[in-house]
Amino acid sequence: MPNFTFEVTKTCKQTGARLGLLHTPHGDIHTPAYMPVGTAATVKAMTPREMVEIGAEIILSNTYHLHLRPGEELIREAGGLHRFMGWDRPILTDSGGFQVFSLSGIRKIKEEGVTFQSHLDGSRRFISPEVSMDIQHALGSDIMMAFDVCTAYPCDHATAQDAMERTHRWAARCKAHHDKDHAHDDQALFGIVQGAFFEDLRIQSAKALADMDFIGYGIGGLSVGEPKPIMYGMLEAIMPHMPVTKPRYLMGVGSPDCLVEGVLRGVDMFDCVLATRIARNGTCFTTDGRLVIKNAQYARDFGPIDPECDCYACRNFSRAYIRHLFKAGEITGARLASIHNLRFLLRLMEGVRRAIAEDRFGEFRSQFFARYDMSRNF
Amino acid sequence: MPNFTFEVTKTCKQTGARLGLLHTPHGDIHTPAYMPVGTAATVKAMTPREMVEIGAEIILSNTYHLHLRPGEELIREAGGLHRFMGWDRPILTDSGGFQVFSLSGIRKIKEEGVTFQSHLDGSRRFISPEVSMDIQHALGSDIMMAFDVCTAYPCDHATAQDAMERTHRWAARCKAHHDKDHAHDDQALFGIVQGAFFEDLRIQSAKALADMDFIGYGIGGLSVGEPKPIMYGMLEAIMPHMPVTKPRYLMGVGSPDCLVEGVLRGVDMFDCVLATRIARNGTCFTTDGRLVIKNAQYARDFGPIDPECDCYACRNFSRAYIRHLFKAGEITGARLASIHNLRFLLRLMEGVRRAIAEDRFGEFRSQFFARYDMSRNF
Repeated sequence: MPNFTFEVTKTCKQTGARLGLLHTPHGDIHTPAYMPVGTAATVKAMTPREMVEIGAEIILSNTYHLHLRPGEELIREAGGLHRFMGWDRPILTDSGGFQVFSLSGIRKIKEEGVTFQSHLDGSRRFISPEVSMDIQHALGSDIMMAFDVCTAYPCDHATAQDAMERTHRWAARCKAHHDKDHAHDDQALFGIVQGAFFEDLRIQSAKALADMDFIGYGIGGLSVGEPKPIMYGMLEAIMPHMPVTKPRYLMGVGSPDCLVEGVLRGVDMFDCVLATRIARNGTCFTTDGRLVIKNAQYARDFGPIDPECDCYACRNFSRAYIRHLFKAGEITGARLASIHNLRFLLRLMEGVRRAIAEDRFGEFRSQFFARYDMSRNF
Repeated sequence: MPNFTFEVTKTCKQTGARLGLLHTPHGDIHTPAYMPVGTAATVKAMTPREMVEIGAEIILSNTYHLHLRPGEELIREAGGLHRFMGWDRPILTDSGGFQVFSLSGIRKIKEEGVTFQSHLDGSRRFISPEVSMDIQHALGSDIMMAFDVCTAYPCDHATAQDAMERTHRWAARCKAHHDKDHAHDDQALFGIVQGAFFEDLRIQSAKALADMDFIGYGIGGLSVGEPKPIMYGMLEAIMPHMPVTKPRYLMGVGSPDCLVEGVLRGVDMFDCVLATRIARNGTCFTTDGRLVIKNAQYARDFGPIDPECDCYACRNFSRAYIRHLFKAGEITGARLASIHNLRFLLRLMEGVRRAIAEDRFGEFRSQFFARYDMSRNF
């Protein structure tokens, strides 16, 4: 069996949403999948065994952060990222492209690569397509992302086109470097579709990347501040031009409504820090929308965060207790909210997959939005 | 069977150290026992199921903190502290006495009780022996402590005697209030021996409390800054005057060496925040002494915190990884260090109990100190 296979196992007759199975050396991923984010080699406030318990089949980790701290050479010495962090299921690493543009200090972008300042210590660093591949090889992730050029919202057509064209050239360099000696065939490389908010560019990018024959495709540069309908429009524009037989990964998207809407439009994979970030602030997902646990109304609410949830937090603790933990500044509060929020999204995707399997994803989506209060969204 | 029984099951022929079994409505406690501290209704950074996993048979929670936040009435409404925090094993609550003296603002101590300012919001509060009992009744702890008067180190004889005598009068009031209508016979009340650092007072206090016939006895006012030999001397002075058939609880003591030395001198129970407090700062217990995980020497150390430890952290993660988590400010680091430090003390006590059972606690102690580097102690 090859190291990587992707099979579309079912297409929903009601909607065209797809069910798939992505096989990797560290295990299989049932798609559509939400990937929790473990930026610095840990999903914040979580342990690997808790991640397994809540049903995570894959996590994402950030190349930029791990390159700066503790450094990919240390992780290579530790036996790779899986071993370093005690996670034996699949890992996807991003390329560092997005972080170089969003987190780092003064940067010079040339055709060769990007020179930037570390946000940690101000040190001068350089990442090129080849360097990004080398870092991801040292980390040993199952899925690697090509090093791309990101644009902001809004962005003019010329800038978007330049960034897209360089992204394509860099994608080719990434692929050439990665495939060089077949020493890393146990790691799959995904290309990234760019093109900002211009349908013509997005379509052009989807086609150009498809021609390069990557194992899978990221859709980058979305969810950067644009209204959601614009993002959905871009997905609709490109999907007819994305290879049907390859996984499609919408990068950095992970609010409950966007997961459902993304799946409807043919997305197979998602990642987002939202779930864990808001959890540490005491904001929880529920079937009815956002719940801010610190609010006074929950002080004597002895029911669970979400009565429909099966997570450890909801099975054992009340809103009143978790609110108390947040008011008292207890780490345990952040832990319970993180477990819940991650399980909420993973359980949502389990429901999505069951609905697709049973050709009723359209109904599932209607019921989700009938219940979910968009005025309490993200 | 009565709600509470205590049986000395074995006395070490080598040393006189004792093995016991304390029966409570929420389960049995094998003594000598270390009790992890869950000040604000959670052992910091831990969940109840992790506490069970590491072998904790009882935890301590703080009356003063819970009274101020979230308030004992809310906890009563939640069904009591066990249910509120999801812990179904025994809980010991202190009386609030120590915290009123050490944490709160301006206070007036009268015979009736103590008026103080909340350290949280400056509000004016009052705790008397009767109020402390009422709070602990609302919390529903298995073991309650009498409300006592604490003194500092050093402290003159007259001050120590006054505080001790008032502690005795308050102990009598606590007992009278607790026993009033037998409505709380499922909660055991322990008296507290005081007397600062004067042998005559300590002996007088041990005898006076013994005459009042409590279910067990705390030894308070030690480990407040005095050299350890002075503390050990006080234990040696009072032990002949403590009832042999009742559990003896050395309050606020919990460094590895003090646990071993306390057991040698006849102590059955200990509690201390040290294990979890230093853990959150990245300091770990090991068989060889203190280990500061952030130190550069551990950056590429791929072995566990303590090779002899069986905890989740030591079985799955390296010093290098945990160091990285602390350098990156990750909650997961505090979690793993907390699991380890607590398990270290609980495992130490398991070893202590096995050694007593086998009449070799003297050897156990010698081996412990031969290995444990006191220059890396606390």
